[in-house]
Amino acid sequence: MNLIEKGSGLYTDHYELTMAQGYFLSGRHNKPACFDYFFRKIPYQGGFVVFSGLSSLLELLENFRFDQDACIYLASIGFDERFVDFLSRFSFQGDIISVREGEVIFPNEPVLRVEGNILETQLIETVLLNILNFESLIATKACRMRLAAGRRLLLEFGLRRAQGLGGINATKAAISGGFDKTSNVYGAWQFGAESSGTMAHSWIQSFEDELTAFRVYAEHFPDNCILLVDTYNTLKSGVPNAIIVARELKENGHRLIGVRLDSGDLTYLSKQTRKMLDAAGLTEVKIVASNQLDEHIIQSLLAQGAPIDVFGVGTSLVTGKDDPALDGVYKLSWFDGKPSLKVSENKTKMTLPGKKTIHRFLDKENQFYADGISNIGEGTYDYIHHPAEPEKRKQVVNLQKEELMTQVMKNGKTIQPLASPAENAAFTLKRLQQLPEEHKRFLNPHVYKIGISEKLLASRNAVADHVYRKNEF
Amino acid sequence: MNLIEKGSGLYTDHYELTMAQGYFLSGRHNKPACFDYFFRKIPYQGGFVVFSGLSSLLELLENFRFDQDACIYLASIGFDERFVDFLSRFSFQGDIISVREGEVIFPNEPVLRVEGNILETQLIETVLLNILNFESLIATKACRMRLAAGRRLLLEFGLRRAQGLGGINATKAAISGGFDKTSNVYGAWQFGAESSGTMAHSWIQSFEDELTAFRVYAEHFPDNCILLVDTYNTLKSGVPNAIIVARELKENGHRLIGVRLDSGDLTYLSKQTRKMLDAAGLTEVKIVASNQLDEHIIQSLLAQGAPIDVFGVGTSLVTGKDDPALDGVYKLSWFDGKPSLKVSENKTKMTLPGKKTIHRFLDKENQFYADGISNIGEGTYDYIHHPAEPEKRKQVVNLQKEELMTQVMKNGKTIQPLASPAENAAFTLKRLQQLPEEHKRFLNPHVYKIGISEKLLASRNAVADHVYRKNEF
Repeated sequence: MNLIEKGSGLYTDHYELTMAQGYFLSGRHNKPACFDYFFRKIPYQGGFVVFSGLSSLLELLENFRFDQDACIYLASIGFDERFVDFLSRFSFQGDIISVREGEVIFPNEPVLRVEGNILETQLIETVLLNILNFESLIATKACRMRLAAGRRLLLEFGLRRAQGLGGINATKAAISGGFDKTSNVYGAWQFGAESSGTMAHSWIQSFEDELTAFRVYAEHFPDNCILLVDTYNTLKSGVPNAIIVARELKENGHRLIGVRLDSGDLTYLSKQTRKMLDAAGLTEVKIVASNQLDEHIIQSLLAQGAPIDVFGVGTSLVTGKDDPALDGVYKLSWFDGKPSLKVSENKTKMTLPGKKTIHRFLDKENQFYADGISNIGEGTYDYIHHPAEPEKRKQVVNLQKEELMTQVMKNGKTIQPLASPAENAAFTLKRLQQLPEEHKRFLNPHVYKIGISEKLLASRNAVADHVYRKNEF
Repeated sequence: MNLIEKGSGLYTDHYELTMAQGYFLSGRHNKPACFDYFFRKIPYQGGFVVFSGLSSLLELLENFRFDQDACIYLASIGFDERFVDFLSRFSFQGDIISVREGEVIFPNEPVLRVEGNILETQLIETVLLNILNFESLIATKACRMRLAAGRRLLLEFGLRRAQGLGGINATKAAISGGFDKTSNVYGAWQFGAESSGTMAHSWIQSFEDELTAFRVYAEHFPDNCILLVDTYNTLKSGVPNAIIVARELKENGHRLIGVRLDSGDLTYLSKQTRKMLDAAGLTEVKIVASNQLDEHIIQSLLAQGAPIDVFGVGTSLVTGKDDPALDGVYKLSWFDGKPSLKVSENKTKMTLPGKKTIHRFLDKENQFYADGISNIGEGTYDYIHHPAEPEKRKQVVNLQKEELMTQVMKNGKTIQPLASPAENAAFTLKRLQQLPEEHKRFLNPHVYKIGISEKLLASRNAVADHVYRKNEF
């Protein structure tokens, strides 16, 4: 995320700066505060979200500065000189306590908490939401495709349809969510992934005929050759020509890696192609399929027995097509020694006050059973209550439990090694094995239970009462 | 777009580089070529697209380089040393002929053409598509909201839900599409726009009561104060407190700019708020509304008579929510002296061969009548033919016409001044006045006619015949 080299502090909403100036000029900026990050709705009508973006966020926060150009700009648009002078020396000195990147998370869980003074904790809101919302959105999409594809190879190649520079974040999140390679060379370079790609139709069009186009390509990439076979006619021209070139490669001690289908009925074409390749003794040549794929189409192709070895996915992965934004929010939960909450006429939108942690309860088979949210340090609790309908409760005694949150940043410095996208993917895959199947299915997944401890419930009621009393109407 | 300061050439799909190496090593890289950019499907079930991203693209192409780090990386992942050496000295030296940025465009029109050698014209494919697809997508969305909002103020504030760094491109495109201001300070800085913002609920929560929170804010921003009134109860607490503060500001020679509604029924609340403000003699205080708005909701609110002066739009604008990608493609149309096309079993997907231009025909009222695509230099033509069903034709004699494409880059250098996003917005608004209403409506808009000249039709048939003969099956 070393992309905004100048003025990274400006990568924010204007109101973060007006509020910061307000806190600064009113002398309140050093008062301690705590904010929670959580989301409300699982995208893609799914049953879980993969928490992603933490390492990007920590890296960015360590470098969050207002350089001279940024300060000159802020002064020029009317910010107070004393405040701009303060910003010129600003760096984020707060703490972050978070679930691990790659963790499987659920709605309304405060999975990340920022502590520090009110100015710094407020100022990072926009960039925090921008990164966590988008990387979690795409890692979740990628993970759904991984679940559909099993162990088959998954290639991300969405850069041409990505949302501008968001294609870079998308590549990172795709790898975090379980993709094997990317077409995005810049992304591969930045995130230690492997880049991959073959040829476009234009390569073939630039030759008088398809066979010559294949031969020239194979000559220059004898050990890394995947031939695009749908330029003229997949079964009558593309595959037969690929078979000729595969045999020529074999004679010279190389082998054709694969053929790529990019249009038409992928089930029918992959079955026919497999037969033709096998009949030619080319059982080792893989079939790569692409063209508007998503997790549902991958699942359907495989259910029909399509012999596809590699899936290339673009638009629906990098944009999260059916749900292009995660609705994550950042809410003040504690200020100047006191728990705080945002009331709402809609009880499901009332936030949880105070500094909290999350426990994951596991059943005897070591499968995820439910998550509990409680005040930090309150100890064990026997029941978790539904946050919106607290009369509904669930017993959680005699269950194994894990505490999900640990401190990852202290005084503005990252205190844990940042996991790579590939490490996060491996962790997610392990965790998903503990998530019961019914939460992983695509159609109407079962809702995973989360609840709050009795003490947190009591605290929420008390703070809400106080808020209503102070703001009577 | 000075964001990728190092290794900008790596912001591409891997296959652009393998093809480039193939062209280079086979000694074909200096052969001349021409590619067309066009899209196939209008997003949002709309009737038009606003062409955007041209200035970003030209700026990026002038700086498209493979620096030392990029070259070391490419060599490390197996690219040929001679090719990497060539890349280290590479710059784009081609020409670009394009419709003006901000032009109203339609499906299947080759609105931008790149000429140069096959290597350079191929190599820029990914970055060209990435920029034009996304900026056009969002400028179109923004423009639809502008049509819905009339002359009311439109604020973009989507950065927190934007697709990572794509939020920067989104801000530029939102201004290009007709938005007045943005919350994105970095975007405002880069693109010469005005940034704007007020306060979050957390500001109010950090005070013991709402009135004090409003007063402290007004004290520090007496001339730029918009109060968020929905933290506790909009009509019973927020608006009454805002009225108190507005009167206090007035007594001190200032004025409250506005109040912001961010939840609840915006029609009901805005009507009640307007009444309360007017009854307090505060007719000058504006009403700002936000919360999951899009063009349809803006249209509905105004149809119901909601007295809203300013709309703030986030997620659905910056992600293009219902259609988060434009399907623009880049196809080889001419190679080494000969027109080229991509055949397809689906005739609607067959591309148009050769170097082409676009004429817009206008009726007597100076309204857009139809667009014609023809070979460059072929002169006038009397009919345009439906590209997929060429027996359908339309007479275009005795009509005023405009040629839409002009050269904007020559030998890698921009040869026209780049328009600012605000200038593009003004141009678009002017052009939309020439687009008949039936193409602008949101529900089932009438399809605008585009067609190809008789000579282009004959050329397409001849090239397709040649392709089929050479690749018989």
